[in-house]
Amino acid sequence: MSTNDLDQSAAELGMGGNLAPESDDAGYRKRMERRQQVQKQRVEERNKEKGLILVFTGQGKGKTTAGLGLVLRTLGHGERVAIVQFIKGGWEPGEARALKAFGDQVRWHALGEGFTWETQDRERDQQLVERAWQTALEYLRDGAVKLVLLDELNVALKLGYIDAATVIHGLKERPTLTHVAVTGRGAPAELVDAADLVTEMTLIHHPFREQGVKAQAGIEF
Amino acid sequence: MSTNDLDQSAAELGMGGNLAPESDDAGYRKRMERRQQVQKQRVEERNKEKGLILVFTGQGKGKTTAGLGLVLRTLGHGERVAIVQFIKGGWEPGEARALKAFGDQVRWHALGEGFTWETQDRERDQQLVERAWQTALEYLRDGAVKLVLLDELNVALKLGYIDAATVIHGLKERPTLTHVAVTGRGAPAELVDAADLVTEMTLIHHPFREQGVKAQAGIEF
Repeated sequence: MSTNDLDQSAAELGMGGNLAPESDDAGYRKRMERRQQVQKQRVEERNKEKGLILVFTGQGKGKTTAGLGLVLRTLGHGERVAIVQFIKGGWEPGEARALKAFGDQVRWHALGEGFTWETQDRERDQQLVERAWQTALEYLRDGAVKLVLLDELNVALKLGYIDAATVIHGLKERPTLTHVAVTGRGAPAELVDAADLVTEMTLIHHPFREQGVKAQAGIEF
Repeated sequence: MSTNDLDQSAAELGMGGNLAPESDDAGYRKRMERRQQVQKQRVEERNKEKGLILVFTGQGKGKTTAGLGLVLRTLGHGERVAIVQFIKGGWEPGEARALKAFGDQVRWHALGEGFTWETQDRERDQQLVERAWQTALEYLRDGAVKLVLLDELNVALKLGYIDAATVIHGLKERPTLTHVAVTGRGAPAELVDAADLVTEMTLIHHPFREQGVKAQAGIEF
């Protein structure tokens, strides 16, 4: 069976649990055994190893946070990580303190100073982004770094401080097994097309907006 | 101005950057100064501190990963964290190894054994979920724990192994400043209604499906 046929087969076999169609346990077990076989085949068919471009975008929460989760996982596998923050940096974030536990295994550069609307000098902002991008390029080219997190780069793109073609060209300079994660609202179409995995975070509820709740340690920073 | 009026005002003032309407720097600076004032007021108006229910759901990637990012931030603030995994647990994940760096500050329970379709015994699955929920309740009631991550609980709900009313009742037992994050596809409507912040992750590209790429260390586990 092809990879797509296996996907189809898995979908037809369906999920387990109490919503399953069988009322008898023997029938359930049989279907789940078949499902397990199909799943094993699916994993075997997909055996390519490659460095991925992952994009977390959209208006919802969890974009930077998902990037940090990838950082934590990669560190857990003993690999090196580099983080370049393009926009934030006005506060001392909890994550920066937490990552100190990993010493030299992680490099952190908070190159954006405060949010963009807190500065009144476009030229300076542009220079900050250019400096951040040069730092990013060094890590992208460094084969010893397994994951490069370019935090809020999408916002720098959206504000016109760097163009998508420059970014995509830079991403292509990295070694074949290096992963790169790009976060921020408004990922441009060119970056979405170049990416291997794009997740859009959609806001459903927000306590700041609806309840007057303040930004809290651990959640927002 | 009310909180909502301030939001409106911030939206009208717009964003900075090279897409801004002013061609002169003085005009730009003036608008951005006003924007900064409005932003300051918005933050001041929102001053309530409370423990939040955060839900990460949807078909996209990054749900568990976003939960892990919250864990990392909370640890960085010196607070205690508890993680209860309802479904996964068949592999030794990178995050488990990484979190060992934080010693007793974090408790991790991988109570689900493998994915649901890898077991053929519904009764056993149900018991695993019930055991995981009892563990979760202990942490939810423990005021010393700042963040409780209930990983893949939504999937246990979706499969009918626990009902939404039981979960919501349990979440209400926690002290007022405890945050709880719930991840997994298919969050039920009752949980979405009870939550303070719900983010839906939507899949745009997926390398497994489209390119035959295997699950890779740091990205998937």
